[in-house]
Amino acid sequence: MLMVDYDPSGWNAPEIKPFGPLSLDPTSSCFHYCPCVFEGMKAYLGPDGKPRLFRPELNMARLLRSAVRATLPAFDPAAALELVKRLVAQEARWIPNKPYHGLYIRPTIIGTRPNVGVMPTDDYALFFTVCVPAGPMFKPGSSTPLALLAMEDRVRAWPGGTGAYKLGANYAPAFESQKEAASRGYNQNLWMIGKNQQICEAGIMNFLVVLKREDGSVDLLTPELDGTILPGVTRQSILELARAHTEGRTELDGILPSTKIHTRETLITLPEVREWNAQGKLLEVFACGTAAVVVPIGRIGINDEDIVFPKYEEGYGPVAKALWQRLVAIQEGRIEWEGWSVPCL
Amino acid sequence: MLMVDYDPSGWNAPEIKPFGPLSLDPTSSCFHYCPCVFEGMKAYLGPDGKPRLFRPELNMARLLRSAVRATLPAFDPAAALELVKRLVAQEARWIPNKPYHGLYIRPTIIGTRPNVGVMPTDDYALFFTVCVPAGPMFKPGSSTPLALLAMEDRVRAWPGGTGAYKLGANYAPAFESQKEAASRGYNQNLWMIGKNQQICEAGIMNFLVVLKREDGSVDLLTPELDGTILPGVTRQSILELARAHTEGRTELDGILPSTKIHTRETLITLPEVREWNAQGKLLEVFACGTAAVVVPIGRIGINDEDIVFPKYEEGYGPVAKALWQRLVAIQEGRIEWEGWSVPCL
Repeated sequence: MLMVDYDPSGWNAPEIKPFGPLSLDPTSSCFHYCPCVFEGMKAYLGPDGKPRLFRPELNMARLLRSAVRATLPAFDPAAALELVKRLVAQEARWIPNKPYHGLYIRPTIIGTRPNVGVMPTDDYALFFTVCVPAGPMFKPGSSTPLALLAMEDRVRAWPGGTGAYKLGANYAPAFESQKEAASRGYNQNLWMIGKNQQICEAGIMNFLVVLKREDGSVDLLTPELDGTILPGVTRQSILELARAHTEGRTELDGILPSTKIHTRETLITLPEVREWNAQGKLLEVFACGTAAVVVPIGRIGINDEDIVFPKYEEGYGPVAKALWQRLVAIQEGRIEWEGWSVPCL
Repeated sequence: MLMVDYDPSGWNAPEIKPFGPLSLDPTSSCFHYCPCVFEGMKAYLGPDGKPRLFRPELNMARLLRSAVRATLPAFDPAAALELVKRLVAQEARWIPNKPYHGLYIRPTIIGTRPNVGVMPTDDYALFFTVCVPAGPMFKPGSSTPLALLAMEDRVRAWPGGTGAYKLGANYAPAFESQKEAASRGYNQNLWMIGKNQQICEAGIMNFLVVLKREDGSVDLLTPELDGTILPGVTRQSILELARAHTEGRTELDGILPSTKIHTRETLITLPEVREWNAQGKLLEVFACGTAAVVVPIGRIGINDEDIVFPKYEEGYGPVAKALWQRLVAIQEGRIEWEGWSVPCL
């Protein structure tokens, strides 16, 4: 694990040391007021057997934004990335040498000011990073598309809150709803806000919908970044790949070059999704994130109703499948694309 | 400090041991997803020199509600209170033997499930309690009433969130605004929600307003418990004392027995407060909480405007002063009232 202490003198010398417990004063602010921010990244083995990270500079930039939002000390994101790369290079033997497998990396910053006074934690902090081998969350052909339970009376994030940042404080408040979803046979929650049932996120992932146009092209919609949505790296990459396809700059397996994918970041409501589905316009619903990459959504439950989406062999619809395969190929270094896959050695 | 571990076998044997660091796996959920809940309590020395807690059963009941909301393991609040009492009895020598001083007690439960998977933390947790000697936050005659900066574009809590529970996750998201308030010469934030500028809380305290009626009686208003407000023990005690006075069941020094205090838990907006102040109806604005007990509020800043409230000698208005003095007298065991002050020995 990587560890870097921060105290009033600044960031101390970084250390890579064996995985072991953290020793912290019980009055450390992280236990009481939760100034805790993190990132999720994945390292893959390239065809050359060397470890690679996927657009890691985006994660480090977001970690810095999260840290500032939580009043934790700022840091140099390029220097932090160098440390993470060094850790990955050293631990590359833990990356499973199998398709769709990687090493999940968790850079974390916690406030460690040893004082129960309620105040910003910009003077004492700990930056640490641990790694865990990770397999695919969704296995085409054997996994069932996700079932989401929509919560009308629970809200993940609010305008003026921290939904657009990766604060640990966004997560525990969602656990009770997650438990209820599991007890009712759903995998995750569909987070909404407002009386118009505006869709925010799918569990801890971004939410996307594919609609068919009469001219044969499709719309790829996802909620706009209005401050309640986490600006996901996978979300951004999916939008960029779809645009590159539509602009003729790349091809996506299984999607005709002539099939334009019109991306739109916009307000999406659950009643709209229900209506598109009833009209037969809705082709696919899926979620994306670092851990899962791309996962199809099969149904959304609300009250006693289940909105059931079109089914596809292997689970993925054609757009989600094409984007997923392309993303994984880039992540695993089998396809080079705009420097997204960054070697660590 | 008091420590009780929870694992899949249940709550382990409690331990009171010397204050020292906690040793925790770096994947513990508290560092990543913030399943952390706490209470603030104060122990006072009674006239007999013995330590007393103020309505501690209310804190333990709220800690249990917070734990359940954060999907931490449940516990027996009466058993937890016995442990806290034992700790206070043992550490009573740390209670400063001076008026308005006490021992601040911080019962805390953190989720310690050692796994970066995002899921409820009902299987591994740590209940610990530390104590810190504490003096008065507001000194009548020498302290300046609080200045609050109202934030229009930031919210502390929202419907469907966790504002009514004492989750650590409610606090760090507020630090950035607290820092801005401090940099602009304010002590804390005034938290509001919605376009109507509905008032929620004063920093980390409950908010109260006293209005004058034409018949000489007064209204004591505080935001209703709509799910965004922490149900404070001091808030509840103030409302109950005011009602007891109005019903003729007790007297409050400095308030005529004939001066009825009409309590109302209701929606209060900042424009209303401004208007009452301009009309000369507004007598006092104050905040309350365990650490501060009762603190007068002197002004509220919003944008470039300061709403300045009536000034009183020593800072407190008559209603806040009477309630504060009575509360402290009960807390310090100088006045017995409905079993609120509970000896620990």
